[in-house]
Amino acid sequence: MKIIIEKDFEAMSETTKNILLGHMSQDKRVNLSITAGNTPVGVYKRMVDIVKDSPDYANVHYYNFDEIPVADQAEGITITDLRKLYLTPANINEANIHPLTVENYAEQDKRLAMAGGLDAMLIGLGGDGHFCGNMPTTTSFENLTYKIKVTGEEPWFVPDMMEAGLEFVTMGPVSVMRVKHLILIVNGEKKAEMVKKVLQGPVTEELPASVLQLHPNLTVILDEAAASELDK
Amino acid sequence: MKIIIEKDFEAMSETTKNILLGHMSQDKRVNLSITAGNTPVGVYKRMVDIVKDSPDYANVHYYNFDEIPVADQAEGITITDLRKLYLTPANINEANIHPLTVENYAEQDKRLAMAGGLDAMLIGLGGDGHFCGNMPTTTSFENLTYKIKVTGEEPWFVPDMMEAGLEFVTMGPVSVMRVKHLILIVNGEKKAEMVKKVLQGPVTEELPASVLQLHPNLTVILDEAAASELDK
Amino acid sequence: MKIIIEKDFEAMSETTKNILLGHMSQDKRVNLSITAGNTPVGVYKRMVDIVKDSPDYANVHYYNFDEIPVADQAEGITITDLRKLYLTPANINEANIHPLTVENYAEQDKRLAMAGGLDAMLIGLGGDGHFCGNMPTTTSFENLTYKIKVTGEEPWFVPDMMEAGLEFVTMGPVSVMRVKHLILIVNGEKKAEMVKKVLQGPVTEELPASVLQLHPNLTVILDEAAASELDK
Amino acid sequence: MKIIIEKDFEAMSETTKNILLGHMSQDKRVNLSITAGNTPVGVYKRMVDIVKDSPDYANVHYYNFDEIPVADQAEGITITDLRKLYLTPANINEANIHPLTVENYAEQDKRLAMAGGLDAMLIGLGGDGHFCGNMPTTTSFENLTYKIKVTGEEPWFVPDMMEAGLEFVTMGPVSVMRVKHLILIVNGEKKAEMVKKVLQGPVTEELPASVLQLHPNLTVILDEAAASELDK
Repeated sequence: MKIIIEKDFEAMSETTKNILLGHMSQDKRVNLSITAGNTPVGVYKRMVDIVKDSPDYANVHYYNFDEIPVADQAEGITITDLRKLYLTPANINEANIHPLTVENYAEQDKRLAMAGGLDAMLIGLGGDGHFCGNMPTTTSFENLTYKIKVTGEEPWFVPDMMEAGLEFVTMGPVSVMRVKHLILIVNGEKKAEMVKKVLQGPVTEELPASVLQLHPNLTVILDEAAASELDK
Repeated sequence: MKIIIEKDFEAMSETTKNILLGHMSQDKRVNLSITAGNTPVGVYKRMVDIVKDSPDYANVHYYNFDEIPVADQAEGITITDLRKLYLTPANINEANIHPLTVENYAEQDKRLAMAGGLDAMLIGLGGDGHFCGNMPTTTSFENLTYKIKVTGEEPWFVPDMMEAGLEFVTMGPVSVMRVKHLILIVNGEKKAEMVKKVLQGPVTEELPASVLQLHPNLTVILDEAAASELDK
Repeated sequence: MKIIIEKDFEAMSETTKNILLGHMSQDKRVNLSITAGNTPVGVYKRMVDIVKDSPDYANVHYYNFDEIPVADQAEGITITDLRKLYLTPANINEANIHPLTVENYAEQDKRLAMAGGLDAMLIGLGGDGHFCGNMPTTTSFENLTYKIKVTGEEPWFVPDMMEAGLEFVTMGPVSVMRVKHLILIVNGEKKAEMVKKVLQGPVTEELPASVLQLHPNLTVILDEAAASELDK
Repeated sequence: MKIIIEKDFEAMSETTKNILLGHMSQDKRVNLSITAGNTPVGVYKRMVDIVKDSPDYANVHYYNFDEIPVADQAEGITITDLRKLYLTPANINEANIHPLTVENYAEQDKRLAMAGGLDAMLIGLGGDGHFCGNMPTTTSFENLTYKIKVTGEEPWFVPDMMEAGLEFVTMGPVSVMRVKHLILIVNGEKKAEMVKKVLQGPVTEELPASVLQLHPNLTVILDEAAASELDK
């Protein structure tokens, strides 16, 4: 594991953008899986400026790694967010976008293998130790891409935001281990303790992201606040 | 995970030899870590015939992945066995042999990284679910190469063969995950149930080899007896 | 360049089969491009025995690297020969066979890039220094996959076997350089002088195969007769 | 080949810095070979700001790819320039600097192979079509790292700057083909015609850089002026 500590959110975003562009600038098909949410907002803002309307990145293909469907909506929460943050403003060709859905998840690992595998995946860290949709109590380390049915008993169940019976899909620990370069970004003091636990504590299914310690090429980019509890 | 099932021990050995030679025949430095013990005897016999006195494999470097020191002996049990089974009969140049020892284990992961990493590792499976020296009750998934001090309380402690206080070293789960191609060979009906547990059961530190399910490029070669309990 | 010299045709075939199986035994999609002709006959005979009806190699995809169409015949000379020698007796799934044709050649490089590139290519050497369909006088080193129209003036034109105006296609030097592991097999005294010229002489378009010296991972497997003129 | 065209020298430098940082930010030993001269000045200025006194890039090792010795001086022109532009201001550890010299050049290719090969090489383009020290009239495509003795008859001989009998060393075309990612940067209108010739013209030893068309992973970064003659 390689840990890079940057001064603040902007510096973390700048370094992350650099790493992604390093992959994207090679002369071959490049398969990227990228995260939705707040943490990558600064990364995508920088990338849009560079990628938008450029012919230089037509070799890059995009995959989401989890999805939560929304009733009466054609696309789920994750891909909708990715479109808003990056894919639409960067004007990415639809042929280069490969949505994971509740319908096609069983084919995801094979589909990626057939396309040469993921070159890089950008992920964030949940305050409860989750990564992708690998949540405490519903994650087994031996999972490939899988579907979870929410019972309402999960520690992360939020009655106002979810309904029992909801199903969502995510690439599992085995799928994520196959990514050639895994990039984890975390910022803010609120996550400092969890950063320490998952990166320097025991590998346990109770904190699913702890399994990332086993990845052969993991780069972690933190701002100083998120890194503040780490043992030096 | 790719599982190849061969008729018997000889066919398993032949296929394994082929895979190793595939790596060894490339035009670059090739770093191999290979296992001692009974399972690879047929592999090494075939390899000696091909490699002995051949100039074609001078690019191959050999590493052991665990070691048990022996009192009053210059080298430990593992490298002594590897020399007897393969390195000496194949007439491998001493400069291409890189022993792991109780003295140098703390440098093993860095040493491998500096040499470009391991291209392949050949391992066996213990009847109790161990791999390399990663034994039940003394293995943590977050371990790099580490030292174990035997207390005498371990489930695998054999009073006639070991002494409490003995120390041995092994590459840990994190180190093994970094190997580019991991090759697991198992033969015989006695191990059939354990094969099923570690390859198709939960990933748990109680059966350390179950963590191998997370490796991004694992080839398992079994004889039919060892494969007999697997779900198809 | 790594040169492996074997005693005879059978030993050359055995080693080549081992190297190919080394690639095919990995846990990922493996893309192979293989040669027609007489030189690989012993390789394919061995491979058929192993691959036929085995579920272990369903991850392997096959590509031809050149093609000569035949009037009134659905498929060309190369793929027809590959089917006869290997694909049909090995019972390869049609979905894993990707013919290059005069019709689709312009898409070949892109198609390979989209599938993750070729992991290995097995080629032979022409008595006139050609490789694939890269012939003296019609090859430019800067060629990707391209089409040649035979004029009848070429030094290799054989009136009884060809007609002026014939078109054929081949992957060019740039395409071949992108293959991750290039495997060249040559046997027989008749080719000994050409082996020396292309491997140890100047890189020149007059002997197209001399460009292979520039490949970053080239393994050459020769029998002793073919190697007899090489400088040691 | 992937060609990225940027507005000006600063944008070219920024993109190049991003690509290099992409490599440097991985969790493994990273071997870089970098160019001296004026073209990379903007790249190094940016990199110094990021790398200086950072613990995050201790995994990066630096190699020069050519060298011209200077009488009565411990080190040659290239490494002296690299120290001034980057290695000294970035405060790179001496153990991570691996000079190529007239004395050790014969070991350069083996030394790189033993260290796992070069991950990336940053090169420029000479106004006469040279790259590294591969000059018109003294370059053969089949060269590994080699030594040139200047006769005074070369087209690039400048009497005021060189003396006949001078010897210098360079990695040759075969050595450069082995680099995993090759990055070529060129700026300015004066080189526009040469950019077109070497990237879109015939591969010929008369313009040594034309051989770069054969590299399997070449990224070219140009400013608009240098790209102005390219066919679209």
